[in-house]
Formats: sequence, C-alpha cells, structure tokens
Amino acid sequence: MLGARRLLGALRLCSSVSCPRPRAAAKLRVREALGVRDASGECVTVQGWIRSVRSQKEVLFLHVNDGSSLESLQVVADSSFDSRELVFGSSVQVQGQLVKSQSKRQNVELKAEKIEVIGHCEAKIFPIKYKERHPLEYLRQYPHLRCRTNVLGSILRVRSEATAAIHSYFKDNGFVHIHTPVITSNDCEGAGELFQVEPSSKIKVPEENFFNVPAFLTVSGQLHLEVMSGAFTQVFTFGPTFRAENSQSRRHLAEFYMVEAEISFVESLQDLMQVMEELFKATTEMVLSNCPEDVELCHKFLAPGQKDRLEHMLKNRFLIISYTEAIEILKQASQNFTFTPEWGVDLQTEHEKYLVKHCGNIPVFVINYPSALKPFYMRDNEDGPQHTVAAVDLLVPGVGELFGGSLREDRYHILKQRLDRLGLREAYQWYLDLRQFGSVPHGGFGMGFERYLQCILGVDNIKDVIPFPRFTHSCLL
Amino acid sequence: MLGARRLLGALRLCSSVSCPRPRAAAKLRVREALGVRDASGECVTVQGWIRSVRSQKEVLFLHVNDGSSLESLQVVADSSFDSRELVFGSSVQVQGQLVKSQSKRQNVELKAEKIEVIGHCEAKIFPIKYKERHPLEYLRQYPHLRCRTNVLGSILRVRSEATAAIHSYFKDNGFVHIHTPVITSNDCEGAGELFQVEPSSKIKVPEENFFNVPAFLTVSGQLHLEVMSGAFTQVFTFGPTFRAENSQSRRHLAEFYMVEAEISFVESLQDLMQVMEELFKATTEMVLSNCPEDVELCHKFLAPGQKDRLEHMLKNRFLIISYTEAIEILKQASQNFTFTPEWGVDLQTEHEKYLVKHCGNIPVFVINYPSALKPFYMRDNEDGPQHTVAAVDLLVPGVGELFGGSLREDRYHILKQRLDRLGLREAYQWYLDLRQFGSVPHGGFGMGFERYLQCILGVDNIKDVIPFPRFTHSCLL
Repeated sequence: MLGARRLLGALRLCSSVSCPRPRAAAKLRVREALGVRDASGECVTVQGWIRSVRSQKEVLFLHVNDGSSLESLQVVADSSFDSRELVFGSSVQVQGQLVKSQSKRQNVELKAEKIEVIGHCEAKIFPIKYKERHPLEYLRQYPHLRCRTNVLGSILRVRSEATAAIHSYFKDNGFVHIHTPVITSNDCEGAGELFQVEPSSKIKVPEENFFNVPAFLTVSGQLHLEVMSGAFTQVFTFGPTFRAENSQSRRHLAEFYMVEAEISFVESLQDLMQVMEELFKATTEMVLSNCPEDVELCHKFLAPGQKDRLEHMLKNRFLIISYTEAIEILKQASQNFTFTPEWGVDLQTEHEKYLVKHCGNIPVFVINYPSALKPFYMRDNEDGPQHTVAAVDLLVPGVGELFGGSLREDRYHILKQRLDRLGLREAYQWYLDLRQFGSVPHGGFGMGFERYLQCILGVDNIKDVIPFPRFTHSCLL
Repeated sequence: MLGARRLLGALRLCSSVSCPRPRAAAKLRVREALGVRDASGECVTVQGWIRSVRSQKEVLFLHVNDGSSLESLQVVADSSFDSRELVFGSSVQVQGQLVKSQSKRQNVELKAEKIEVIGHCEAKIFPIKYKERHPLEYLRQYPHLRCRTNVLGSILRVRSEATAAIHSYFKDNGFVHIHTPVITSNDCEGAGELFQVEPSSKIKVPEENFFNVPAFLTVSGQLHLEVMSGAFTQVFTFGPTFRAENSQSRRHLAEFYMVEAEISFVESLQDLMQVMEELFKATTEMVLSNCPEDVELCHKFLAPGQKDRLEHMLKNRFLIISYTEAIEILKQASQNFTFTPEWGVDLQTEHEKYLVKHCGNIPVFVINYPSALKPFYMRDNEDGPQHTVAAVDLLVPGVGELFGGSLREDRYHILKQRLDRLGLREAYQWYLDLRQFGSVPHGGFGMGFERYLQCILGVDNIKDVIPFPRFTHSCLL
C-alpha cells in the first residue's frame, strides 16, 4: 500500500493498451491517481467509496473517494457493469487504466476493467442521502458517519494538516515537545470547574483515592511546562484539556485541545507576542498551501467572504493595545453593551467583538490586565495604584479570544507572598522551588486549537471542528 | 530568539577582535553555538544553567547548558569574575566571543566578556547535587527538577524526537491524524478497569451524570479510529490512554501514550505487520540520526550492550510465528515456567521473554490467537475446531509486548451475532452501522509509546520515560 508512486513508475515501463497481468496493478490512493500527469493507460487499482453514480446510454460514470482528498476520481465503465450494485456509499475496488480525461473537470479518469463491490450500502437507512447537502446540525447526530461527507472530510483533513504544521513550527524553532499529564493533583488554578477521576468501581467510595489524593483532568499544561522550560528553555505541548462547565455555547467544549508553549529567558510580552503571531501565520500558510481545496470548500459553503477576511489577517501585523486602552475604546463606543465596560471588570464576548471590529478586523493583542482578574502565577507589573500583570490575550475576528498568555512571576519572594496570602503555599511548594533553583524570567501562552480552526475556516460551531465533541449532556460514542 | 542563525551570519560580516556593540550580540542556543564551524570571534549571547564550574589560577571554566543539547558550552572567563556567584544550577547570561577551542573536547568555546547571574541556585537545598550521579529512583521523587539532569534531559529529548518522527512517518505515508476522544461512553471493551469522570462537585451524586451517561477515560482510540478509517482509509492517533489497574510494575502506568493506526482495505495481517515494522524502524532510524548523543548516553549509563541489541533489531527482518507455534516452542522449552504454557491460555511475560530469546533477540510477531482470549471486534479466522482470530502482537527484547493489533470483524452478520451473544448490541449499534454502510476489510494496531522508548533506550522502568508518571498511589504535581 505504501510506496505506490514507485510502483507506478515501474509499471509505466511496461504499460500497454490493455492490462497484461491485471493482478499486478499498482494500488493507488485517489490523491495519487489524481496527481498523475500525462496518464497513458497505466494499470492501477483504486479502492474507496462511491460518491456519485451517473448512468448514460453506453457509459456509467462513478466518482470514487477514499478520503485522501476532497476530489474524487472519475471512473468510466461501459454499461455492461451492473449499476444496481454500484450505489452511493458502497465500497468498491476498481481496476483499470488511468487515462487523460476528455472533460475539463478533471485531468485523469480511470477506465474500468473490473469493478468489485466490497461492501454494500443500505441507502434506505443510510442517514447521509445522495446529492443532499445536510445541515451541520443534522450531521452532528451521526458522529460515526458524518466524516463521510465532503464538508466534515475537509474540516478533519485541515485539522490533521494544522496539527502537523504546529508540530513542524515548534520543531523547526528548537522547541522540545512535552507530554504534560492529563491527570493532575493540582486543583486550584482557577480555570473553571474540574472533572474528577476515580476508578469506576470506587467512584462511590469517596474516602479512598486511587492516587491517594483527589485527581482531576487537566485544565492546562502550563505549570508542568514551566517545570520543563527550566530544563529545555523552549517547550511546547499539544494535548487535550478539560472544563466541566455547564455550557452549550458555540465556543465551548468539555474536552478540547490546546497548543501551549513556555519560553525561558523572555523579558517582555513582546517576545511572546512575536511567537504567537508567527505560530498563527506559519501554521495557516502551511494549511493553505497543503490543502487549498479543503479550505476553499469551507469558505465557500460555510462562510462566504471568509477567504478575504483570512487574507486580511495574514497580511497585516497584529495590533497591540493595553487593557486600559481597550476599556477607553469601549467606553467611547456608540454601541450599547449588555455589560457596561469598566476598568477592573473582565471583557465580555460583545466587548471582544467590538474591539476587533474597531481594529479593522485585524487580530489584536490586549495586554496588561488588572491583577485581580488573573491567576496567581502572572508577573506583577508593579505599576502603582492600577496594579496590572503582564498578561496578554489575542482577540481574532469571529471567535474572540484565541490565545491567552503571560509572563510568569519568576521572583521567589513575590510569588511566595502571593501563595501565602492565597493559602496555596503547601500545595505549590514545588512550583515555588522552580524560583529557588536558577529561576529565569519566562512566559508562555495557550491557543485553543478548535477556536483556531473555527477562525481560519469560518466554522460557526466548535462542535463541527472536532471529531467527537463532548459537552454537557452529550458524549456520543 | 528565533532566526539566530541568520543573525549570526549577519554579525559575522562585521566581526572584529572585541565586541563593538555588546548589546547587539546575537542570542544563540547552546546547540547552535556548538554547531558553529570555524568560529572566529563572533559576538554572541548564550543563556542557560551552570552545569559545572572549574576554577584555575587565572581562568574560570564554566559549562552552560540550556537543554537544546546534551552537550554544554564551555565558557572561559578570566579569574576577575566572582566565582562565588557562579554556582551549579544557577542561571546565567554570558556575552562574549565565540572562538575555536584549544582543547580537543569541544570545537568552540565562549570567551566571556560579561557574565550575568540571572537566578541563584540554593545549592544546599537543591536535591540535585553537583558531580553526583543520582539513581533514577532517587530522581523520581523530584519530577519538577529531574529534567535538569543529563539522563532525564536525554530521555525527554529522545521522547520529543520520537514523537515528531512518528507524526512524520504517518504524514509521509498518507495517514490522516485524528484526535480520538479522551472521554468516552464506551465501557465494555474489556481492556482492564476504567477511570470514571464526573465534575468534582458532583462526584458524590451518583444519580446525576454530567454527560447524561456514565463517562470514562479511554483505554484505546481504536473504535473511534475505525469510524474514521471508513472515511479517510488510513488514519492514526497518538494520545493518552488510561487503565485504573492496581499495578506498580516497571511496565505499567495509569496514564500512558499510545500510537494507534487503522487501515481500510487491508486483507491480511501481513499488510499490518509491514506497517508496524516500518513504523518501528523508520522512527528509530530518525531518532538515532537526530539525537545520537542522547541515545548514546542512555545506552552507556543505563543499558550497556543496548546499542548492539538495537542494531541487531534494526538490521533483521522481524519474525512471524503463530500462537500455536509459540505454544509448541514453549512446551518444548527446557526452562521451567511459573505458568505452564497451554493452548488457549494467554502468554505471560516469562513466555514472551523466552520466545524473543528463542528467536535470537529479533522482534517477533505472534499471530492468530484463540478467539476466547481476544475482544469481540477481532476478525474470526473461521479455522474450525481451534477457532482463532486474526490478532497480532509484536514481542521485543527487554519489554515483551510492544504492539498489539488485529484485523477487525467487518462482516455485518458475524459481528451482529457476536454482539447479540454478549448483550452489547444496543451499546454498539453505531459500531455495527459501520458494517452496514460500505463496510471494508480493515485492521489496525496500537504501540505503547513508553514501552517503545524503553525498548530503544534500554530504560528499565517505565516511570523514567514519561515526564510525569501516574500510577496507583502516586500523582505528583
């Protein structure tokens, strides 16, 4: 199955008008077949699922898709093939000759010599109907089948490409990848409600803990990454994180993915913002270059105009404003907000949207938030009565907050005081230790991966950019 | 911080005997500095932690490490620098000129012009002691600090490289990456005890479930990958999996990583075994070529002889024997086993070890296990009275079972019967659906990632190849 390209090359040497030894035909993925230039009758076998059937007087046209690309391969068969068996959704193996297509709609097509139905599809009860464009809400009921539609296929291929691009970006820039733990005994990071974990047989025996202590699903790998940035300088993680929030919003899931990085020896938020902007742009450029058709499909059918909006984000330097400036902008807005903007109060989604629009739909970093709004680990700006910390959020069009980050409090005495005040000293002694043994100024950020996909593809609901969405009242499969 | 190489190139153009504008010195990672050929006095800044200090009459030698490589950069300073501040574990920023080293032990060294201590290290209470080689057991007590030792640094760099290599292998071979869910409502796959998940505030309210149904941490992404292989043909996942087993063995964790792949249109175990062997060999070759020093350190200090054993594995084709043959071999063994080998009974660790040794310490695939030993989804070989399924395990020296895989039962009626018999029909209706709508012969496998690292590095205890090990009674940090 692998090395099909080499096999095809070898076959070409002996290609002739009809397949001499049909069993020796090279197996090609649909993407590979579509990529063959100057097809001249190579004997190949293609396997996949029928996406369309069109029967004419003397010919039968099939489109076969195997998920390697959005585009299907056109198969041309003479009408002697039994078209009753060749139905939408069925899996087939087609053997034949790869030839230049007469039509302008594709480069190559497969002249079938043998078509074998591998698995029949019961069209009557198949929830995905031929030639129908199902709403995304409808498809969400069928997480085991929706990946067979064009739109979910494209979204999930983009997800896969973006995953690879993110790993590449960090590797190329000297970051060490760390698997931060999913199960953790840290329970007081203040990022919303936690899921707790116990063996199913003991979940009703609260006095016993499998790990001796209560254990939770992680809300962020940050603290563990900080450990590692003290050894490797630049580290990243890309894994699942969890919030037990009772939310059904189009931007929240109970299980979602975060890309997090932590960097030692950074001295200002500027250093962090540079990496965030580079990560966003480099990843997006790679996705656009590796799966343009998939991105185009989403832009065309889900978010008309998104192509231009994305280009606008990519070609402009992201903006930077302070939280204080943001509040000023909001106060001067002619718009009436449900939540009155006020210094010291968190930005709401409506505020984020307004700010991005105010900034000409260019992503905008908002920096230096009031200390009282942020968790204990953020670095104190020591800026007098206002008292802010070196935090940064990146707001993007359509989604709002995409990245959150900060410099971390690296000064032993300040952190110790803060932990003492919060009564967290004992629980976070290990975290304080990091400031006692060769502490360095450092900082990091997290990017919500599903929100990133929503942002570049223009997908409105977060449940459509993850293979198996988990949220309150729902855990299908 | 990024693009240091370009910056260095530019600086070279204006390099002179002493740094003209010290503030403009290029920041280099230690690995980058070590890689400079024909150093000729470039002004650079290096940041990291002091790994050793040696004071001679007129010179001071420091070794500075930033985790970008095992090797540290030698810094040479004149004795006017205050060596009391420059202690093991402290973080420093050194500015100076990169020059060819006089010594044979390194290519380049940094002639210090300015050394700034960024964070002092309290040596007296620092659990890692200068010049001491701490046993791995000792280091396990300090998961937040052990990554600063040579050995854990090397292991975790290898882990990062192996992660990247695995992603590359699959991407290069046309697999789509899928994030299979961590939280799942499947509870009867029979892979040991499960962890159950509920919001911490509700964990003692058993009648209410956050997801409406009981939810568990995944033991494998296989079933979800099967969904996706029905759309993308070749898919993989690489994520955390969980077992709530009361085990403290050197081969088990409660949270560990699995690399899993699922492939449609495979017709025999041979197809799967080819991918497994290629994955093992390609990943290992890439690790060996990208971080040879790190691998060498492990081989040298943790497992003498491992280098040769690994080469032996890589240069030989893996062997294949059937379960039935394996039992025969074990029965004829002169060795006395604690568990008597018998057809129909699972292989024990002692058996696996014997088989690998019997096969000349070449990894060996054991195929076609008794149906009764394996889960419901494995493909029936329909081989008469013995009744085996198309399962495969790969046994490797030192570790035992590294991969497990199988062809999956793709025939609707056989699977339906089996689910009916087990009373699982309703819970797995979605899984049965996949066989009703364009079913294809398919199969897949999983590789325990920590066991893979143990195997190539010769690390005896699985707790030393994962950043933050979780096991019964222990969830540090």
